[in-house]
Formats: sequence, structure tokens, C-alpha cells
Amino acid sequence: MQNSTTAFASDVKRQTSDLSQTWLNLSAPPISQTASEAARQRQQQLTKPPGSLGRLEDIAVAFAGWQGTALPTLDRCRVRVFAADHGIAAEGVSAFPQGVTVEMIRNFARGGAAISVLARLHGADFRVVNLGTAHPLAEADRNHPAIHHLQLAPGSANICTDPAMDCHLLAAALQAGADEICPSEQDGTKPQLFIGGEMGIGNTATTAALTSALLDLPVDASVGSGTGIDSQGLVRKRAVVSRALALHLPFCTTPLETLRRLGGLEIAALTGAYIAAAQQGIPSLVDGYICTAAALIACRINPGVRDWLLFAHRSREPGHGHLLDALNALPLLDLGMRLGEGSGAATALPLLQMACALHSGMATFAEAGVSGND
Amino acid sequence: MQNSTTAFASDVKRQTSDLSQTWLNLSAPPISQTASEAARQRQQQLTKPPGSLGRLEDIAVAFAGWQGTALPTLDRCRVRVFAADHGIAAEGVSAFPQGVTVEMIRNFARGGAAISVLARLHGADFRVVNLGTAHPLAEADRNHPAIHHLQLAPGSANICTDPAMDCHLLAAALQAGADEICPSEQDGTKPQLFIGGEMGIGNTATTAALTSALLDLPVDASVGSGTGIDSQGLVRKRAVVSRALALHLPFCTTPLETLRRLGGLEIAALTGAYIAAAQQGIPSLVDGYICTAAALIACRINPGVRDWLLFAHRSREPGHGHLLDALNALPLLDLGMRLGEGSGAATALPLLQMACALHSGMATFAEAGVSGND
Repeated sequence: MQNSTTAFASDVKRQTSDLSQTWLNLSAPPISQTASEAARQRQQQLTKPPGSLGRLEDIAVAFAGWQGTALPTLDRCRVRVFAADHGIAAEGVSAFPQGVTVEMIRNFARGGAAISVLARLHGADFRVVNLGTAHPLAEADRNHPAIHHLQLAPGSANICTDPAMDCHLLAAALQAGADEICPSEQDGTKPQLFIGGEMGIGNTATTAALTSALLDLPVDASVGSGTGIDSQGLVRKRAVVSRALALHLPFCTTPLETLRRLGGLEIAALTGAYIAAAQQGIPSLVDGYICTAAALIACRINPGVRDWLLFAHRSREPGHGHLLDALNALPLLDLGMRLGEGSGAATALPLLQMACALHSGMATFAEAGVSGND
Repeated sequence: MQNSTTAFASDVKRQTSDLSQTWLNLSAPPISQTASEAARQRQQQLTKPPGSLGRLEDIAVAFAGWQGTALPTLDRCRVRVFAADHGIAAEGVSAFPQGVTVEMIRNFARGGAAISVLARLHGADFRVVNLGTAHPLAEADRNHPAIHHLQLAPGSANICTDPAMDCHLLAAALQAGADEICPSEQDGTKPQLFIGGEMGIGNTATTAALTSALLDLPVDASVGSGTGIDSQGLVRKRAVVSRALALHLPFCTTPLETLRRLGGLEIAALTGAYIAAAQQGIPSLVDGYICTAAALIACRINPGVRDWLLFAHRSREPGHGHLLDALNALPLLDLGMRLGEGSGAATALPLLQMACALHSGMATFAEAGVSGND
């Protein structure tokens, strides 16, 4: 067993090492220092004490740098929920049955899920991408205009016994994420912001394994109650994640290999999406625990991605704070949310819109005839 | 001097004691427990793990109780900025000259101030109320439709030497706040939310005096840099507030008398507005330091008001946290803002709108055919 695992590991390590030489490593464009500085100057001239809008000022300056203009706007936001099943669900790590993944994909598309309500409210471009579920989607759902039905595999493997995916599946999932970013022929309008979300029964367990592996943390620090398991379930979940780590940790020598062994299809897609968005000059507003794990992997693969990320909220999952610290990220909201789907990011989106509206819509001291400070 | 002050104090104490027997003490209506409970039940049935929307769930339940319906909406928000000058500005406690109050009133009305931009963005009903400025408003501004020009007095007195206002002025300012809440003949539509804001050069000094008096705090805990005074200015501001407290504290035996001696016209108007809003069954979203001081006074005068308040954000002014603690209030945002004007409350408003939209717009497990948790 040990021998065969080692041989397998060596084989795919070579493959993920090949993968790391692909599009994943292309540089993200630089932030415009000229536009950032012009925006910073403008903030000093607006009719308010300098700095008094706090982080809303920083956000406006960041968008100026991203868009290369002193007066950025934020009208076009793209929201994608990446859904996939996880073999680890068989270990009883979730309060919900695995069939919920497929049921929720339908709910996303029909507008009944939290992220659907928020995306509609904000006028965002929204769809759900099915990377691969254990249960089949109904025919009608596979053809629903708000569902991109890829079904790369019937979910990822149980990481207690196997790597989550092979190298080809990893490459396909990363590419699937990128494909949601790059403007297609039909849809030529580049979004000004990307929000990724995720759905997959068991994916806080997978993310806990990733977090412990990436940050060298004990499972007590990375495993939380997810959708709401009880204390007995929490003990079981920790044990399950520990087994997965015991099996794979020795081979987790690169971020891609860690993602391949301990991740999930939707986490890989998010990773690809964050990298591709940065490469296209599109900032991403990162959601909670699972999305932040993907963001950390994206930054480890391609460090330039970090400049294109904003962090939306602090999840109640305990591992999230460790990921945020590792990314030197201070999220905008702390509302005790822990739903996933991109719902925390969608909840923070109006802050970004207000920051841009204030920046461009407020009068300067000169325009308003208001006296400046001493 | 001591004798005359004492005599004066005794005289007006009798008057504020009369004032406390007026409309200020009429009860606020009870929260609907039936509607709150129905909303709580609905939150358990929506397609998400129970509790996973965090504080957004509590907000929806609160609005249900306020509106007496399991499916509350939030379309009609009223924003009022109360402006007034403060005699304490003569002591050099602000980074800006006193003329800025009048200049900003014009800027509010013409749409160039932060709160103007946010009120417009949110489609809120907005105007600024001039309680009384030291410098005259231009004729055109006095008749501007977005300015309610009351000019009860040329600002409040310098609290280092006198009470901020006499009892008649206090009563008029409290009433002016209430008048902005009560539906008039012409404007019969009751707002679903009230946001109060304030503007007045010197009003963080006034508020620091109020905070120290109300909470028995040293000035080090209540005095901050306001619009941005330097460290030398901060030392001076602390000394000024200490002088005001030394003069008035012995007579600050009731919240109304404290407000009369150490407050300001716009702070009194906010106090009246919060009380009247609660009495009309309209919840208020409380802004930062100055507004929270007014909210605390409102709750001390009429404790039933507390049930009708939500707190928007944590200001960078150090005294604000003490006021929030005294009100057992946990604000929604912490973005390093310290502008006033109601800008922090307007920034938090979309959270309330999203909470209501999620509550009414999400599908239940039964509606969506999604399996519940174990």
C-alpha cells in the first residue's frame, strides 16, 4: 500500500509540476500607480475630513488602480457559483445528505437560494457551474440557462482513501473556472468585479484539510461545524480530516499537489477563476472559508494574484481567520455568516458600489465652496 | 459666580423637569411578538443551514416585529441631517472653521456631501434641517427645497462658560426633531426606517462632554480627534471639555438637564427624532458618535425607545465604543469611518435591505424540494 501510494504520488507530482508551467503562471497586469495616486489626491479634496470615510476611501483608490482611471465605476459584476460533490461526504462530515448539492443547483438556477436573491437584487450576471455531482441532474436542469452543466466527474474522490482527483481532472477544473472569466465571443463585456461562490456537501471538511496542509495547522484550528453538525459530529469530522492529512501530507509539497490531493472540483475551479480574473485585470471579491482557501492556493501558485483580491467577510468557521491572516487580508464584514454560495461577498458588494459612488459623486472643497481644514 | 450659577441651575432644572412630563415620555408601541416568531420560523425553513445568514437573520426578524408582518419590506427610508453651530468652537476644538457648518448645509442640499450621494443612491427621502448656525445662510439656501431652515438660535452657547441652551430652546430643538418624523398632511407615507445625521463644527467636543457626563468617564476616554485635530489640539480639546464638565457636572442630574447644559441643538433634535420615531413605530438606524449620544439620552428619557434602534457602525472616535456598550449595542459595520452626517448609517442601509430581500425572496426547503438537515 505504502509503495503503490508513493509510486502514484511520484507519477502525478511530475504531472502537476507540468501543470504549473501552463497559463496558471502568466503574470497579472500591474495596478496603475498613476490612477491610484490621482484617486488618492481626489479623496483629499472631497468635502469631508481626509480619511473620514475609512476603508471606503481605500476601496475607491483600489478600483482606480484596477481600472486605470481616477474615477472608477462598478456596474458590471459577475457572480458564479461552482458546485461539486465530495467523496468525503461518505464519512458523515455534514449535517445534510449529499443529494442536497444537486437540489441546491436547481434552487440556484430557479432563484430561491440566498446568492440568487442577492445577485438579482444587485443586477449581477449570475450562473451556477456544475463541475460534477454524485447524483444526476434532471434533464431540464442540465439545459437550464442559469446552469453550466460540465459534470467533469461524479464528484471528487474520498480523500481519506485517495487523492481528490487526478491531474487531468485538476487541470480541467482549473480551466473550467478560468472559462467563466474570459470574455467569450458572445459576451464581450468584461466584468468589473468577479464574485465566486461554492456549493458542495462536505466541502468545509475538504477545506479544513487544505487549510491544515497549507498552513501547517492542527485540525482543531481548521475544522468547524460547517452547515451545523453537533459536537459529536465535530469530533468525527476532526478524525476524518486527520486521516486524510495522515495519508496525503507527506506528498503535499506544492500548492497544486495539495489542491489535487485534498481539494475539490469547485475549489479548483475557484482557484482557476481567481487566477484568470487577475490575469484579465478583473478584481475578485473573495467570499468565506472555502473561497479563501482557493484564493490562498491561487496566490501561492501565482503571487501576483494577491493584488487583485478584496476580502468580503469573516466567516464563523474557525479556520477562516487563519487563511485571512496568511493572506494578510482584513475582510469588510463580520456578521456571523457561514452560508457559502458567495453570499458573504454579495452582501459586501454594496460597500464597493458606495465607495465608487462617493468617490465620483461627492463635490470637492473647491466645487462646493467649502473651507478646508487648517 | 457660584451663587448665580446655582440659582440659574435650580430655575432651569424645574423647567426641564416640567419638560420631562410632555410627549417625550409617551410609550413606544410594543414589538409584535407574533410577527417576530413567524419570521423566526420562516428563517428556519429557508434553503440554508439555520443561522447561517448570521445577523442578517436577526435583522429580518426585527423588521418583522417592527412592521407586524412575517414578510417585512424596506423601501421607504427617511434621512435627515440636523445641523447647528456650537459655541465651544470658539475654544479651538476643531480642525475646521465654524463657517464650514453653513457651507456644508449648502453642500448637503446641492448633493455634493457624502450623505447626499448615499441618500440619492438609496432612493431615500432626504433633507437637511438647520437648527441654528452662527453664520447666516444665503437667502437662496434658506428657501432651498432640501433645506428646512429653522434657525432657532445662532447656535448653542459655549459650554465652557454657559449652559448650551435654555429650556425653551431645548424644547424647541427636541420638537424640531420630532417634527421631521411625524407624517404631515402633504406627506402621508410613513417611512419604514429613519436615519438621523448631524453636522456642526465642534460637535465631537460637545458629544465628548455629554459622554463623560452620562457615563461618568474621564475625558481621555471620550475626547478623540474629531475631524482630524493634531496631538496638540487633542490636549487642548481635552482641557476644554474638562472645563465644561467642571462647570456643569454638579447639575447634570437628569438626562434632559445634561442635554440642555452640555448638548447642542442638532443633538437635541436627534434625541427628539429617535423618541418620536419609536413612538410612531418607526425604527431608527443610528449613525456614529454624536448620534449614539443622542440615542443614549433618548433611551434614558424614554427606555422603550431602545427596542426601536439598530446601530450602524463603530466610529473611530474612542468615546463611541463606551456609548455602544452602555446601550448594549453591537454595530453592523466597522470600517474606520468618522465622518458623521449619517454616512455610516447610510452605508449600513443596504445590509437591512438585503436582510429583508433574503427573508422574503428565498425559497423554503419545501418550495425548492431541497432536503433538510438530519
